[in-house]
Amino acid sequence: MSNGNENFVREITPQSQDYSQWYLDVIKKAELVDYAPVKGCMVIRPYGYAIWENMKLGLDRRIKETGHENAYFPLFIPESLLQKEADHVEGFAPEVAWVTKGGQEELSEKLAIRPTSEAMIGEMYSKWIQSWRDLPVLINQWANVVRWEKSTRPFLRTSEFLWQEGHTAHRTEEGAEEETLKMLDVYRDFVENDMAIPVLKGLKTEKEKFAGALRTYCIEALMSDGRALQAGTSHNLGQHFAEVFDITFLDQDDERKYVWQTSWGVSTRLLGALIMVHGDDRGLQIPPKVAPNQIVMVPIMPKNKQELVKEESQKLYDELKKDFRVKLDDREEQTPGWKFNEWEMRGVPIRLEIGPKDIEKEQVVLVRRDNGEKIFVKRDKLHDKLEEVLADIQDSMYNRAKEYLEDNTRVAKDMDELSSIIEEHKGMVKAHWCGSGNCEEHVKDETKATIRLIPFNPNTGEDCISCGKGDSKEVVFARAY
Amino acid sequence: MSNGNENFVREITPQSQDYSQWYLDVIKKAELVDYAPVKGCMVIRPYGYAIWENMKLGLDRRIKETGHENAYFPLFIPESLLQKEADHVEGFAPEVAWVTKGGQEELSEKLAIRPTSEAMIGEMYSKWIQSWRDLPVLINQWANVVRWEKSTRPFLRTSEFLWQEGHTAHRTEEGAEEETLKMLDVYRDFVENDMAIPVLKGLKTEKEKFAGALRTYCIEALMSDGRALQAGTSHNLGQHFAEVFDITFLDQDDERKYVWQTSWGVSTRLLGALIMVHGDDRGLQIPPKVAPNQIVMVPIMPKNKQELVKEESQKLYDELKKDFRVKLDDREEQTPGWKFNEWEMRGVPIRLEIGPKDIEKEQVVLVRRDNGEKIFVKRDKLHDKLEEVLADIQDSMYNRAKEYLEDNTRVAKDMDELSSIIEEHKGMVKAHWCGSGNCEEHVKDETKATIRLIPFNPNTGEDCISCGKGDSKEVVFARAY
Ligand SMILES: [Zn+2]
Ligand SMILES: [Zn+2]
Repeated sequence: MSNGNENFVREITPQSQDYSQWYLDVIKKAELVDYAPVKGCMVIRPYGYAIWENMKLGLDRRIKETGHENAYFPLFIPESLLQKEADHVEGFAPEVAWVTKGGQEELSEKLAIRPTSEAMIGEMYSKWIQSWRDLPVLINQWANVVRWEKSTRPFLRTSEFLWQEGHTAHRTEEGAEEETLKMLDVYRDFVENDMAIPVLKGLKTEKEKFAGALRTYCIEALMSDGRALQAGTSHNLGQHFAEVFDITFLDQDDERKYVWQTSWGVSTRLLGALIMVHGDDRGLQIPPKVAPNQIVMVPIMPKNKQELVKEESQKLYDELKKDFRVKLDDREEQTPGWKFNEWEMRGVPIRLEIGPKDIEKEQVVLVRRDNGEKIFVKRDKLHDKLEEVLADIQDSMYNRAKEYLEDNTRVAKDMDELSSIIEEHKGMVKAHWCGSGNCEEHVKDETKATIRLIPFNPNTGEDCISCGKGDSKEVVFARAY
Repeated sequence: MSNGNENFVREITPQSQDYSQWYLDVIKKAELVDYAPVKGCMVIRPYGYAIWENMKLGLDRRIKETGHENAYFPLFIPESLLQKEADHVEGFAPEVAWVTKGGQEELSEKLAIRPTSEAMIGEMYSKWIQSWRDLPVLINQWANVVRWEKSTRPFLRTSEFLWQEGHTAHRTEEGAEEETLKMLDVYRDFVENDMAIPVLKGLKTEKEKFAGALRTYCIEALMSDGRALQAGTSHNLGQHFAEVFDITFLDQDDERKYVWQTSWGVSTRLLGALIMVHGDDRGLQIPPKVAPNQIVMVPIMPKNKQELVKEESQKLYDELKKDFRVKLDDREEQTPGWKFNEWEMRGVPIRLEIGPKDIEKEQVVLVRRDNGEKIFVKRDKLHDKLEEVLADIQDSMYNRAKEYLEDNTRVAKDMDELSSIIEEHKGMVKAHWCGSGNCEEHVKDETKATIRLIPFNPNTGEDCISCGKGDSKEVVFARAY
């Protein structure tokens, strides 16, 4: 579905000129997403969906390895159910899409399209959980959810998106806290190792926590324009939902008790992070572990050697596809140069060129997307070399992003310094905060930076940058997506 | 999440007493599904969802091997879009759920929750397809869909269900027909080989075809109560949607032409077929290829040998789990006998018992769910034996179902014979039909049997059983789910 236009790739706006337009250009040209004829909804095209599928595989494996099972709960949540938990409904009601008609009949009760499934799942858990022997319940769901957004942006903020949501119930408070932190670390491990995106881990403030939660933990990543992006959240729900949905169990001591719950999720939003952390002016860069094509083969076919090159390329392709996600681009209507640009733009980690001379010399030319390095590799060494280079690209991409995060994490002693750092560099800024919502709000009004997280063992002792209160905690501020 | 009730398994109504209640009992006791607090919607519980996940793996592999890519299209379809194809809207409008409110605002245009995605995808294809080089477009989607049903039944007919829907566009009429038949055969291959369910393949009548299609092909399976179930459909859409959504391409001859399209789908309905084809009075029977647990290990633990047996079982489990989907049930609060019943009810193909004597003799006891056969297997032969028995169970389950289908496929010479066969045996009944909608309707009124399909090379020559018209085609009638 390429448009056959030679200028195709050149239509990407440079990051330095207009980062936001660059993002939209990359998404459009790389055919990740298209706009749907419904306000705020996106079509995830095959190339974008293939990245999501690889991400799902890596995360689903980790979710199962930590003892969770998948299930599926209904899309619809009756209004009365959604309204049971007061904070929850207040947080979500403004962005709920409502079904009011089924077939020809008006419904007697409106149905919410799930914005998240705590209410539905709470209702079911109250039926399923009776005894301490039934605990823990460790369930995850892969699903679509809807939050009616006023201003949208592909992957980052759309009215419908795809995600996974884990929902667990535990016997003890400690059990729930342990689960919350365990899943936060599963997210960190997945995002850092599969997506090559370094993250900070920590606690959200009261203001930023999930509606209805006791505590929300998060991982935060830094995009290449200096803005932060929340990449995953893990909530300790305490007993809020258990009390409201009456989820109780008979404990070993014969007492009936409320369960302790958690929920945690990541979404297609992560695809936005992948684009903005790794992309450059030539387009996408996809880490090998989640790339739909890890390798693209471009045969160089002068007319008199066309058959030979086609045949040899096909042979090599058949060999490589056993162990790698490889694509052979032997279209005759496009030039090699056009294909080089096209696949660089689509972020394929490795390009293999194979022409008549390479065949003669029993070699191929390997070109890395991340640093442009060109390596001549003997055919009999190719398999090992590909494994080595793919691993090295994965590491290099992570390290470069990690270095960027470190270089763009600064410390501010006072409000003026915070303002000027944010204005000049954006990035993550560490500064002390007393814990009050007023100070949090004040900093936001002054700088448009929010508290992204409170680190696990924050530095303490300095004064709050807003009110000057002593012995405050060092937290991380940033402007965020 | 068992309820610890010793009488648990005995609560299944025998098939002979009330087949319909048996079905509901199995679904409930095996924890496949629970009723949601929304009319006609189901919760697919982890055990049911795990079967669906295995089914998805097997089918998704086949869909990709035949050159298709996955993508994701929006849940919402604007009313105006759905209304573009007249037959299509007429077919689906009565069962559409409508979103009329987003957040606090009334929408200016109602949004349908997708009952199927031809309209949305047609709209996108008209943007994506320009040239013959863009064809074929071969896209599949795994998604939830909603059809507002008046009377529902878990898996078989629910207001929301999960499915895959393939949507392809081709340059020629032949290309579309070839795709339609190819995917029909992919379904047959998947359902027969992975789910061990034999099917008939053929063409739907005009009355039974998909709303908006040129032709609908289907696979039909026979449940153990003698009723047929449509297990998958593949539609040749012709150019109907292309004309309405203006999906054209510039052909090699420089003429602008409409594409030829197909769509095809199977759904969680197949889980209903799995239950009704293989289940018996003891509960579920799941074919090894899609079973969440292919093997369950039940250690026999007399008090004085408990440690030894636990340790040996764990060792064996760690070994087996590398190659099989195996579950170790070493709960101490349940007796071995209770566990035997429980796992038989849940349809696990193989049970391994391991007690102190077995450890002494370096053996385990292998019990087959399908025929109750008990085999003593030496530990060093176990791995091979398990592979052999799992393959044999898969085959035996298919063969038994195939035999049932053959035994319950009868021929009727006239209307009386058709009526009495349907009344007495149900099953599939072959009879001649002239092709008229009136005769089709007449047979249905008389017998409640519908034409399930017209075989690919039907016998011809006899008179229509309804009107007596000569040289009619032999088609397959049945009462159906
Ligand atoms: Zn303060
Ligand atoms: Zn007739």
